Amino acid sequence: MNERMRGLGAKKSIIRELFEYAKTVRAEKGADSVFDFTIGNPSVGAPQAVADAMKHLIDTVPPEVLHGYTSAQGDPAVREAIASYIRDTFHAPAQADRIYMTVGAAAALSICFAAILNPGDEVIVPAPYFPEYKVFVETAGGVLRPILSLPGSMKPDIAAIGAAINERTRILLINSPNNPSGAVIDSESLTALCALLAEKSREFGHTIYLVGDEPYRELAYDGVEVPYLTNYYKNTLVCYSFSKSLSLAGERIGYVLLHPECENASDMYAAICGAGRALGYVCAPSMLQLMIPYCLGKTSDISIYAKNRQMLYEGLTSFGYECVKPEGAFYLFLKSPESDAYAFLERGKAHGLLFVPGDDFGYPGYVRIAYCVQNETIAKALPRFEALAKEYNL
Amino acid sequence: MNERMRGLGAKKSIIRELFEYAKTVRAEKGADSVFDFTIGNPSVGAPQAVADAMKHLIDTVPPEVLHGYTSAQGDPAVREAIASYIRDTFHAPAQADRIYMTVGAAAALSICFAAILNPGDEVIVPAPYFPEYKVFVETAGGVLRPILSLPGSMKPDIAAIGAAINERTRILLINSPNNPSGAVIDSESLTALCALLAEKSREFGHTIYLVGDEPYRELAYDGVEVPYLTNYYKNTLVCYSFSKSLSLAGERIGYVLLHPECENASDMYAAICGAGRALGYVCAPSMLQLMIPYCLGKTSDISIYAKNRQMLYEGLTSFGYECVKPEGAFYLFLKSPESDAYAFLERGKAHGLLFVPGDDFGYPGYVRIAYCVQNETIAKALPRFEALAKEYNL
Repeated sequence: MNERMRGLGAKKSIIRELFEYAKTVRAEKGADSVFDFTIGNPSVGAPQAVADAMKHLIDTVPPEVLHGYTSAQGDPAVREAIASYIRDTFHAPAQADRIYMTVGAAAALSICFAAILNPGDEVIVPAPYFPEYKVFVETAGGVLRPILSLPGSMKPDIAAIGAAINERTRILLINSPNNPSGAVIDSESLTALCALLAEKSREFGHTIYLVGDEPYRELAYDGVEVPYLTNYYKNTLVCYSFSKSLSLAGERIGYVLLHPECENASDMYAAICGAGRALGYVCAPSMLQLMIPYCLGKTSDISIYAKNRQMLYEGLTSFGYECVKPEGAFYLFLKSPESDAYAFLERGKAHGLLFVPGDDFGYPGYVRIAYCVQNETIAKALPRFEALAKEYNL
Repeated sequence: MNERMRGLGAKKSIIRELFEYAKTVRAEKGADSVFDFTIGNPSVGAPQAVADAMKHLIDTVPPEVLHGYTSAQGDPAVREAIASYIRDTFHAPAQADRIYMTVGAAAALSICFAAILNPGDEVIVPAPYFPEYKVFVETAGGVLRPILSLPGSMKPDIAAIGAAINERTRILLINSPNNPSGAVIDSESLTALCALLAEKSREFGHTIYLVGDEPYRELAYDGVEVPYLTNYYKNTLVCYSFSKSLSLAGERIGYVLLHPECENASDMYAAICGAGRALGYVCAPSMLQLMIPYCLGKTSDISIYAKNRQMLYEGLTSFGYECVKPEGAFYLFLKSPESDAYAFLERGKAHGLLFVPGDDFGYPGYVRIAYCVQNETIAKALPRFEALAKEYNL
């Protein structure tokens, strides 16, 4: 038996663990016994366009085509629709023959790491970061090097990132809007980061790739713009998923987009295809692929998240909690009232409140509150957060 | 960039390569310009039950549930339905909490190899075998050791397998009904193989697991029985996919079933969960999971394959070709009229006939003909096979 795998299976991610705990408590004690802010599983349903597209496909496409293998890299018309959407929407470089359809963003990231890394290679990621990054990087034989973001703004610490880049660095991994902080990397920061990558690539004589994990691209509030990465840096791979924008987290559909002018683009695209093959992916689910062109640019009802964000931010800060106001995604990164965020979680649990300690995101002293829930869930939970605040005399 | 991945992407599997070639030729020269017997992509559509179940789910399950994350190991009710189906149908040990839902059989196999193997561990497989096994085993750091099956019957050579097992052997991988030979491992052979595994496990002081790749379980002809593995050996993992039985090859839905009495079953199940996590799988596509209980025991119209098998076997042998009559799956393994099967393929191409050389299945001198097509395709292709036979003066 492989010990690493046994360990990964036995010790679930804390998010998955709390998700299962909440399911159990809820089944025993009823829906309002626990308010689960742990998992980024949208409780706002997919838009009607998804159901309409699926039924339309079932009614009009012969089943042997609808459910048959696509090319390993994905249906060509689907990839063309995506490339064209990105060119039109973000005025950014994108080409169908440099897109590879994946079984969600986790697959996209795993594939990019496997395609780029050799044993011992390093991936720099600003913390806080999604904890499974470490698992995926280590599966590819790499080493994840988190660099703490600036506590005031949760923006990447560009100087610290520059200092950390060394001859083993192969990837800078960014996630904007960020899970768990909600921070968006603005155009100015991105320009500086990309200049740094170009400089360090020259210094060390090899390419340092920019990999973007972008499932939250469409979830940005107050008109905040999320820069499109291929407008900034050639050696870029964008990992996208429709999990959050279309509330399809369980369906696993996304893609890798390689910058068409990436160095050795055709070799790199081959490595992406090879990695998908080596990891057993064969092709992304066919009907979900074919559904995409009908739903590009559509989203589930994001106004619910926008309202949640406002309610939570105003409520929590009025109770005395501290946090940076999230600009995007559906997470709020709250400063724990005591330095041990796990102890804070335990006290939250007593109030039926579940959230994830920042330690698991490489950022101790904070907790992540996932607000991809209905407005009334926030309304019902706020008094509990208030009672919890009083325990801490905030 | 990772050279192994670039290589795997640049050199496609010959099956995928011929599949793409056929698509191109067909697009240029029309549907009847090429008869593609290369890929196991059923051209017999999914049964109506699949469409009905999907529409029913879309109409009755709230989208946030239908398309939301399931538990990583899969929806509990779906796993219970599968376990109960296996107990009832095959009178074989099966338990919901020892089933792990996967993104098809390729994922299931990749997960089993990652869960069991450590670098340098060996996997024995009877040849001919599905070529991607080698890719998946090597991704897990293992070494694939093919053992030629008996040419008369295409049954596993049990003596040779026994001689090949050594202190690095961790898995015997079997695929019955077999791709590409169509052979079924009967109860007697399976009993002998399992006795061998038990004996060698004792001899080498560690468990040798039996891993079964079973996407063709339902495709067996003339009343041939496909023994259910957990009735024969405790340390068994069954990899199943609905790709072929329900003609859902592009959808990627299947599972790993671990024998409930496997040694250290809960650790092994944890390793399976850990491997799924490490490879980026998150969960199997949710709506496809929920569709399964409506379709267990159903199949697409297998009588079409049964008729194809008869037409092909009778036609080809009457033209003078040699082959073992397939007992299951939808492949016929034909002896190449010249020793170089690639040369035979080239001559086939000139007649618009595509099939896959046995070399790629670890069995030179043969070709695989995938007959998962409509009856009329076989009828139209047979005269071409006859013309080809005449070229060889068969």
